[in-house]
Amino acid sequence: MSDTPPNFDSQPTQDQDAYALDAAVVEALLNAVAEGARERLIETLEPVHPADIADFIEQIGPVERRNLLTLWGPQIDADFLFELEEGVRDEVMEILSPEQIAVAVQERDTDDLVYLVEDMEEEAQEAVLDALDEADRVAVEQSLQYPEDSAGRLMQRHVVTAPQHWTVGDAIDFMRASDDLPDQFYDIVIIDPRHKPVGEVRLGKIMATPRWVKLADMMEEGLRTIPVDQTSADVAYAFNQYHMIQAPVVDENGRLVGVITIDDAMDVLEDEAEEDMMRLAGLGAEEEITDSVWETTRQRFPWLGVNLITAVFASIVISFFEDTIAAIVALAVLMPIVASMGGNAGTQSLTVAVRALATRDLTGSNAYRVVRREVLAGLLNGLAFAVIIGVVGVIWFGSPMLGVVLGISMVINMVVAGLAGILIPIGLEKAGADPALASGAFVTTVTDVVGFFSFLGLAGWLLL
Amino acid sequence: MSDTPPNFDSQPTQDQDAYALDAAVVEALLNAVAEGARERLIETLEPVHPADIADFIEQIGPVERRNLLTLWGPQIDADFLFELEEGVRDEVMEILSPEQIAVAVQERDTDDLVYLVEDMEEEAQEAVLDALDEADRVAVEQSLQYPEDSAGRLMQRHVVTAPQHWTVGDAIDFMRASDDLPDQFYDIVIIDPRHKPVGEVRLGKIMATPRWVKLADMMEEGLRTIPVDQTSADVAYAFNQYHMIQAPVVDENGRLVGVITIDDAMDVLEDEAEEDMMRLAGLGAEEEITDSVWETTRQRFPWLGVNLITAVFASIVISFFEDTIAAIVALAVLMPIVASMGGNAGTQSLTVAVRALATRDLTGSNAYRVVRREVLAGLLNGLAFAVIIGVVGVIWFGSPMLGVVLGISMVINMVVAGLAGILIPIGLEKAGADPALASGAFVTTVTDVVGFFSFLGLAGWLLL
Repeated sequence: MSDTPPNFDSQPTQDQDAYALDAAVVEALLNAVAEGARERLIETLEPVHPADIADFIEQIGPVERRNLLTLWGPQIDADFLFELEEGVRDEVMEILSPEQIAVAVQERDTDDLVYLVEDMEEEAQEAVLDALDEADRVAVEQSLQYPEDSAGRLMQRHVVTAPQHWTVGDAIDFMRASDDLPDQFYDIVIIDPRHKPVGEVRLGKIMATPRWVKLADMMEEGLRTIPVDQTSADVAYAFNQYHMIQAPVVDENGRLVGVITIDDAMDVLEDEAEEDMMRLAGLGAEEEITDSVWETTRQRFPWLGVNLITAVFASIVISFFEDTIAAIVALAVLMPIVASMGGNAGTQSLTVAVRALATRDLTGSNAYRVVRREVLAGLLNGLAFAVIIGVVGVIWFGSPMLGVVLGISMVINMVVAGLAGILIPIGLEKAGADPALASGAFVTTVTDVVGFFSFLGLAGWLLL
Repeated sequence: MSDTPPNFDSQPTQDQDAYALDAAVVEALLNAVAEGARERLIETLEPVHPADIADFIEQIGPVERRNLLTLWGPQIDADFLFELEEGVRDEVMEILSPEQIAVAVQERDTDDLVYLVEDMEEEAQEAVLDALDEADRVAVEQSLQYPEDSAGRLMQRHVVTAPQHWTVGDAIDFMRASDDLPDQFYDIVIIDPRHKPVGEVRLGKIMATPRWVKLADMMEEGLRTIPVDQTSADVAYAFNQYHMIQAPVVDENGRLVGVITIDDAMDVLEDEAEEDMMRLAGLGAEEEITDSVWETTRQRFPWLGVNLITAVFASIVISFFEDTIAAIVALAVLMPIVASMGGNAGTQSLTVAVRALATRDLTGSNAYRVVRREVLAGLLNGLAFAVIIGVVGVIWFGSPMLGVVLGISMVINMVVAGLAGILIPIGLEKAGADPALASGAFVTTVTDVVGFFSFLGLAGWLLL
């Protein structure tokens, strides 16, 4: 085995594995851990970005993980802590010493620190807070007072501000004299004497403007401030909708308390989309790929339980028609088709509705038009598939009337699917609930019940 | 009716309707259009952000849309064009005059222009390109040479660069003398004599550093360049993973050809998550809430067709057991339960897998562990629900053996669901296909077939 670590950070290309962990590096790291070769481990890890180290630590097994951290030991660079998902992070925190944590957290902005500690258990949280200098600790503790998933948790407390009378030269001199600017800032916030933001000036503009120009004369148009108790979902929406890079956060009196930057909004935006996707599939939003078998089982059980209840409900509907089925067994063969088509059409409508509600593209202004569209699309596709499945039914079982029953129940169920798929999430949203949560169970219950009832009911009426 | 327009841009609060279009403003706008009151329309629209105008235009009906645009007419401020979704934008483009388009596009960065024109029909595209000055037109045309959904389409062509020997003072003097800096830039790209990027310097750092310091001595660590033909999904992943704000784009010779900023990456990241969600539900990624009934019907038809085929497949499996069902009609009542539970468990596994593949959290390093976890979680939940449904079966139909059959087939189908839910998307990814596309149909086909076959097969064997 060569002692030269492979190049982990090589230029990504257009192939489909761009940015995937390089298999050779993964192998080299695992070998170093297995052989207890600390020097080689550290050398191989050195060029790797903390986010990639975090991914690697998440993806290996728990035994290898513990061995890696123990071997890395005193020389550990704990920057990757900020990139880990919660479950693995808790595991890692127990292995790290207070000094290692202190080194990792000292130079970070307060928004990163809040993100790191907010879900920690009290003991671990104390360890991190104790490692901070006084000013940062107070800032982090203040942010933790705000509700979870609020602007107050997302914001960076340290803001570069300037009074209204400053010129470009004043701002540049002030920044040159300051030895402690935030890592990330793109605008200077202009504040009035009561500490209320009145505007923002882009750094790029300051650089391009003569020293004597007043900042107040070069502010961006349309300042948008964020109330400190606004939900992070709303903050993310605003950044995306209005192409914001940075926004001042204000308290209930309109005074500046922090600033949110686009990178934080980007994280939230992705989490929100992921959450809707997970919920539509009946998954807890916090389920992670690193969860254990037991956690996975436990988290999925409730939704499967809901599904069992709806399935039993559908069975009860079928049981009303036992005599009909006993007379014509072909009905048992064909009945899942109508229910399944309704379930799929309903899921389509539902997904469109949940997404449009999340992006605020479905509102009172167009709700009627969208409902109408879903019903009509259900009707048209219902008619198309009624013809297809009717013909299949006739050919397969040689009964024209069976084909008619299949066709009619298909149309009914597809129209109902469109209606349920759009009205259920709108109703949940109106009721103040998450439209993605449990919508799927409601919609398929409706389409199963209507599917079985219309098909078996019509069959009993027309065929017996 | 008052002539004072309501305040559209009022301070958003923490309520759940933050940033939703204000109902009073929507009403005022619709009234102004209905009454043909141009002055009032313009006055009401004036404070509204172009992105909100675009949402409004999307959400009203086609007749009102045309009336609004005609009334707004010559004074139209076409900035909202950049915010519209494709279908509505094409509609609007036909109404605007070349002069109006020219005004809207003149001051925009080239990445915005590419985004606007790339999906346009040739005639509309020509109209926009003709409105640009020579340099912008050439830049946009060059970007359009790159493949769709590549870095070349996302990038801004206009980059602020500096040679390695420049000092902070040189950079500031250069920018002050320049009258045409990009709207959005956060770093200066340092280039070598062959125009290859060697580093980036943050604007915030330049402002905080004395004039005589060399830019080459204050570059950010770990420069990441983006190959111009990289897919936009990979670009978005890199921005998110490495917390990038701006990245230089290079051609195959490593020469700087443009720059991508985080706001563009944010759009792509959201689109990618949305696409997976839509595909999992059997929807075209380009389906929009503004699509007509006909478009909606047409786009959903193919997936419903695939579902019909799988449903017929399941029916064929059931038809093998017609004699068994004729003997015990209770089987027809209970058989959808096993299939439905398998379908739901499979969808859970599938959604986790598709998401983890998209975020590169499921790789060769952990694939075996994740497959094992899905199978075991399926087994455990299968056992739990086997007991529950077995008891229900016994109580309902008074046959202990029927309960046993239900329970065993439940366990079998839940294990198969876990296996299919994870292996099918991994297999599609390995084959170079989109793991979200059609996975759902494959997985439910497997769970339907296995569910019906195991339940009815066991019943025939044990109960007859």
